[in-house]
Amino acid sequence: MMDRQSLKTRIRSIPDYPEPGIVFRDITTLLQDPEGFRDTVDLLVAPFASNQVDKVVGVEARGFITGGAVAHQLRAGFVPARKSGKLPWQTISQEYELEYGTDAIQVHTDCIERGERILLVDDLIATGGSAEAALSLIERVGGEVVGATFVIDLPDLGGLQRLRDRGYRAYALVSFEGQ
Amino acid sequence: MMDRQSLKTRIRSIPDYPEPGIVFRDITTLLQDPEGFRDTVDLLVAPFASNQVDKVVGVEARGFITGGAVAHQLRAGFVPARKSGKLPWQTISQEYELEYGTDAIQVHTDCIERGERILLVDDLIATGGSAEAALSLIERVGGEVVGATFVIDLPDLGGLQRLRDRGYRAYALVSFEGQ
Repeated sequence: MMDRQSLKTRIRSIPDYPEPGIVFRDITTLLQDPEGFRDTVDLLVAPFASNQVDKVVGVEARGFITGGAVAHQLRAGFVPARKSGKLPWQTISQEYELEYGTDAIQVHTDCIERGERILLVDDLIATGGSAEAALSLIERVGGEVVGATFVIDLPDLGGLQRLRDRGYRAYALVSFEGQ
Repeated sequence: MMDRQSLKTRIRSIPDYPEPGIVFRDITTLLQDPEGFRDTVDLLVAPFASNQVDKVVGVEARGFITGGAVAHQLRAGFVPARKSGKLPWQTISQEYELEYGTDAIQVHTDCIERGERILLVDDLIATGGSAEAALSLIERVGGEVVGATFVIDLPDLGGLQRLRDRGYRAYALVSFEGQ
């Protein structure tokens, strides 16, 4: 398996995207590489290898890619957490704060059965707002959170620490400082 | 493995969504079931089990879930085909027709190397417009299409036949008539 530094070099950095002063971390270059994709999935799963996981919740849209593969690796079901208005059946919503204003994500009310053990997967954790909202949704529908796993952490924004401070097991594969 | 009829019964039908007269086929109930998700991935892969597949292209957003899992199963890379304006680097676009107007999907220009063997994955094929656009993008960036695989076919809309008429190997796991 490649080490985390090799994995990190496969992530493309795009300066001034989506706006001046922001460096966007583009994981498509990592995921399109067969070895990179396989190792990413193995490393996302590793901290939870000895845990029973019934379902993986992936956050729209990039969290669907890694989340789908992690669910497959763990032989678990997959549950999408989507932006408002995208799920076709009965939903519950959780708002979270953005830099300016709020946003919300939703899951179907019947997506998880009481006591099922759930792993949250997303491509990136920044402030942790959407991750906290997703974890809250999982608990509101009766799930038991096993933990949360991310490809990229932006530690200066404090999201991973925020989840840990709330008692969750939370991990990321690589960190980019200075955001 | 469950048979296709059992798999079909795990897909939820939602009448009058997103508009009166349309029956929406909701695969979240299939994917959230661990056995359902695993068997869906196995059946999506089955027709191509003896083919070399270097990369899987999945179409935003539900095609990311099944596509990510199929790529993982095949030990292939994953390439997202996204709606306009969602990919952060250099893209090429392909328009396709909707009932009223047009839409477009994009891939990164460096997502595929010349001669790589590519499998297209999406959750549903209706008229086949977005699938044809994705196949066209794969070929424009130098990929060789191995085939296309879908969870649901709406045969009355003719998409699967349209791909086959163009010489592609195309399969779906279940069909819903009368749309």
